[in-house]
Amino acid sequence: MTATTFDPSQSRFDDEAQDLTRSLPASKKVYIQGSRPDIQVPMREITLSETPTHQNEMGIAQQGEHNPPFYVYDTSGVYTDPNVEINLNRGLPKLREGWIAERGDTEKLDRLSSDYGKKRANDITTAELRFAHIDKPRRAKSDGSHTGNVTQMHYARRGIITPEMEYVAIRETQKQHELTDIRQHTGENFGANLPKVITPEFVREEIASGRAIIPNNINHPESEPMIIGRNFLVKINANIGNSALGSSIEEEVSKMTWATRWGADTIMDLSTGKHIHETREWIIRNSPVPIGTVPIYQALEKVGGVAEDLTWEIYKDTLIEQAEQGVDYFTIHAGVLLEYVPTTANRLTGIVSRGGSIMAQWCIAHNQENFLYTHFEEICDIMKAYDVAFSLGDGLRPGCIQDANDDAQFGELRTLGELTKIAWEHDVQVMIEGPGHVAMNRIKENMELQQSVCADAPFYTLGPLTTDIAPGYDHITSAIGAAMIGWYGTAMLCYVTPKEHLGLPNKKDVNDGIVTYKIAAHAADLANGHPGAQARDNALSKARFEFRWEDQFNLSLDPDTARDFHDETLPKDAHKSAHFCSMCGPKFCSMKITQNVREYAKGLEVAEA
Amino acid sequence: MTATTFDPSQSRFDDEAQDLTRSLPASKKVYIQGSRPDIQVPMREITLSETPTHQNEMGIAQQGEHNPPFYVYDTSGVYTDPNVEINLNRGLPKLREGWIAERGDTEKLDRLSSDYGKKRANDITTAELRFAHIDKPRRAKSDGSHTGNVTQMHYARRGIITPEMEYVAIRETQKQHELTDIRQHTGENFGANLPKVITPEFVREEIASGRAIIPNNINHPESEPMIIGRNFLVKINANIGNSALGSSIEEEVSKMTWATRWGADTIMDLSTGKHIHETREWIIRNSPVPIGTVPIYQALEKVGGVAEDLTWEIYKDTLIEQAEQGVDYFTIHAGVLLEYVPTTANRLTGIVSRGGSIMAQWCIAHNQENFLYTHFEEICDIMKAYDVAFSLGDGLRPGCIQDANDDAQFGELRTLGELTKIAWEHDVQVMIEGPGHVAMNRIKENMELQQSVCADAPFYTLGPLTTDIAPGYDHITSAIGAAMIGWYGTAMLCYVTPKEHLGLPNKKDVNDGIVTYKIAAHAADLANGHPGAQARDNALSKARFEFRWEDQFNLSLDPDTARDFHDETLPKDAHKSAHFCSMCGPKFCSMKITQNVREYAKGLEVAEA
Repeated sequence: MTATTFDPSQSRFDDEAQDLTRSLPASKKVYIQGSRPDIQVPMREITLSETPTHQNEMGIAQQGEHNPPFYVYDTSGVYTDPNVEINLNRGLPKLREGWIAERGDTEKLDRLSSDYGKKRANDITTAELRFAHIDKPRRAKSDGSHTGNVTQMHYARRGIITPEMEYVAIRETQKQHELTDIRQHTGENFGANLPKVITPEFVREEIASGRAIIPNNINHPESEPMIIGRNFLVKINANIGNSALGSSIEEEVSKMTWATRWGADTIMDLSTGKHIHETREWIIRNSPVPIGTVPIYQALEKVGGVAEDLTWEIYKDTLIEQAEQGVDYFTIHAGVLLEYVPTTANRLTGIVSRGGSIMAQWCIAHNQENFLYTHFEEICDIMKAYDVAFSLGDGLRPGCIQDANDDAQFGELRTLGELTKIAWEHDVQVMIEGPGHVAMNRIKENMELQQSVCADAPFYTLGPLTTDIAPGYDHITSAIGAAMIGWYGTAMLCYVTPKEHLGLPNKKDVNDGIVTYKIAAHAADLANGHPGAQARDNALSKARFEFRWEDQFNLSLDPDTARDFHDETLPKDAHKSAHFCSMCGPKFCSMKITQNVREYAKGLEVAEA
Repeated sequence: MTATTFDPSQSRFDDEAQDLTRSLPASKKVYIQGSRPDIQVPMREITLSETPTHQNEMGIAQQGEHNPPFYVYDTSGVYTDPNVEINLNRGLPKLREGWIAERGDTEKLDRLSSDYGKKRANDITTAELRFAHIDKPRRAKSDGSHTGNVTQMHYARRGIITPEMEYVAIRETQKQHELTDIRQHTGENFGANLPKVITPEFVREEIASGRAIIPNNINHPESEPMIIGRNFLVKINANIGNSALGSSIEEEVSKMTWATRWGADTIMDLSTGKHIHETREWIIRNSPVPIGTVPIYQALEKVGGVAEDLTWEIYKDTLIEQAEQGVDYFTIHAGVLLEYVPTTANRLTGIVSRGGSIMAQWCIAHNQENFLYTHFEEICDIMKAYDVAFSLGDGLRPGCIQDANDDAQFGELRTLGELTKIAWEHDVQVMIEGPGHVAMNRIKENMELQQSVCADAPFYTLGPLTTDIAPGYDHITSAIGAAMIGWYGTAMLCYVTPKEHLGLPNKKDVNDGIVTYKIAAHAADLANGHPGAQARDNALSKARFEFRWEDQFNLSLDPDTARDFHDETLPKDAHKSAHFCSMCGPKFCSMKITQNVREYAKGLEVAEA
């Protein structure tokens, strides 16, 4: 791979930008204003058609009853706002800049603090690749003896409700009040799950307690606040990133923008190939969602890929470098203790986490304790100066069904619990990463142990994959486990694509992974009785029952695919409002019989009265 | 659609037959012989490569350690046996004919018993479509006052172990004895799930008690016995069938053969379009797995699609017609009682089961009790004369999350429990169909109620779908529910394809549905601790860990897809035995570090000793 000029205006981004800014079918971006005019929370409004009340002889709807628009949580950022001009070369508008500045507890630095960051900024060989409008970094003000603390947890514990907290409260509540209209058609049973309001104060309490986090680095003011915690909607993360074997900055930025359009709540940039620093800058500047990384990956590249050459100094500089770019959460494998390493020796597949094996290799090469563990409080000091959240990594997660829930895995989890409490002493936000490969009957044990030893810090799991025998389908093997662990209390699900174990995901794989994980997350929200979650199922099922095909497509997680599949059998437009479907044909319709049943039941009521 | 000449020798079946008889990669058909030479139980033997013990500088494996072949359950029939000539025009060899005949309790009839069957046999307009080698039907001998009983349950309750029972005992045990070899590499923990032997006597007891069934009509001697019950491997069913809007006999036979190749344990032919009788004959004669149908679909066609014109006489004749063709189980919606029908009136999506709505329409039009219920014992008399199993249909299953677990659904389930006991008085085999659309937190209730009211008769569920919002992905929304309910005790899972709710599945959809449901079923087997289930996960994970890429592909549920995905990133052949993968690249490998860990751990042991 040679260094290529990266200029989106000359790249195939142009076509994609067209697609990216296109609205989803029958959808428009709307904003709900909070207590002040600069709190504008985005939603996607889906316009629905009328319920046909009559059909002519051909089964074509004649006229009908109003169905109110439906509102869905929207992670696509201003890409889908026609009033905002998108220019990938300049990055997104800085939504949160005013909120951060007005708190008066941060300062803009004259220059980057990290040595490596400075070097990259001045490297003429990568000048052409570099994002052109890099801001000066912001950091918590220092009072001389120690740096300040600008975390959302720090504010929450002082009783402050930030605009970020209010924003997520509005975002989580959703706007389904109009749906009460449906209730009359469906009897009393419907509506048990209609939304209750999530208040900003509730958000503050959840963050103060550590049960939820809002990952939003002060150097990523472009991001739209979102919350991760067991009492909120289950979120999903999409991993992107190049490797030594392929992919370009362009491709990675493209994956990020598409992933958020399709519904990714956060993105992890796991790049390990060329231009890691520059790739990340492009991603962050154009990302409407929080960005996570695994800093040890870049640190390892800095020492030529030799794990035992890693040092605390190189790692620390990497944390600062990335914090000043705006990374919102760091995966840190501080729980891979020297004593746990030999307990993995009898595993069927050893240590499969990349970060875990790097740290294990370092520990045994030096016969010393993990430097992430021994320097943990110094790391906290960096995190709180930028409000980077911990994602405490599960370096010893099982790589196969056989290795699940073993001493190595659970030993590390207990250590992550200890570290959670240390981070909380610093008011640093924390979530905990989880496995891995686990059979269904052993999933709950993971959740229960995590809750007990990590004091309800949000759990963030990869899958888990419920069997090892389906490479090529691991989005599905893992969605089964993800839905279940989401129901048990996991706050965010890290997606798995069909390419897991086989190769780097392309755009289609990213799409498959995201839609599959939206399903898992939503199934978990339903099972948890999250306020309002069922409203979308009900709206779609009502559309299905009433043969409003277009509404059924538009309310679905992937309208284009639903429409394409339908059109394979019945391509004619007329069929989309017709009172039959391909499964039953025009002569017989089980839905039509239900109408007869309703009339019959009404007749019984009259007879009884 | 016009009637076309159906001659596989001139059709595109030719190309497909080539593909169909091809062995899966590195696989060959083997047979395990039972207590007599005509009990030959098929398995697929997958040859594995050696474990590389050294790599040269390029990471290429040099030599290695033996890995024994792996054996998997094989539903593909003799299509994958190179010693058997496949001729779709003649049908499959009649494997069970001798076992049936030697029992001496059946007779070959001179002609079909059903009026409709006779009419079809003599219809010159469909002569060209007709399967050319139709046998005379077999039926239980009659002693004058009543017909005999030839069900497996009848034999089992008399203490008889049939060849069919011995066959499934061998089939369920699998042949993984050689896998004990792996144990030494992986420590004590491995092998907890190594196979125990399932005995023919255990099979007999399970069938006698009603906890399991072997659906095998005496008129389908081509089928390879398989067992459905909670103490056996979880099975999957694939639905095929034409509709008024499309598909041909050719396409449906093709879907059946491919579905069984990919792993379908049974097939349901749900045709509602043209030539239902003729299509079914072609399917049965060429099917190595049991075939199920919903006879009311064909009965409805016989009365021009008008539900209220159905009569017991027409339905009864349809049962006999299909029983003499060799259908192995019938879905019968005998639990849709008149009194339950009005309880569906307030549902969001009413009655969505096709059979359920037909019977509901009949009941309310006549204001009479369901004739399937009132004639249930007469139906039992037909079932036992051919050994057709009941699949008691859930006509009132919920069509959306909102309608799950309501009075209508559970009322019907209780009635199915009553009917189960009546069928068992006749020694007729029974399974019970289940929902539908159910949120994860409400699935277990379904299983528990079914077990309690149906006295442990096998549960056979469609999904359930755990959310309504993903049309186009309902194989996934439902696989989540299917895996869970399989774990809770469901014996067979009816697959759902990506086309569910949108159109008729094509061959790719059938593939997606089957692989997805093989995942769900296997995840359930793992969670249930089914003897031997984890052996395949372990063999594949060991191959993965040792970078035996080809073995990883060949052990997977869909070797071609796994290989294709891998080759997208790393197409070169050399890479398939190389010690790195695209995720990490050549410089860093977490699996390699594990080798270091093992050496370190060994060093510690030496130091302690």
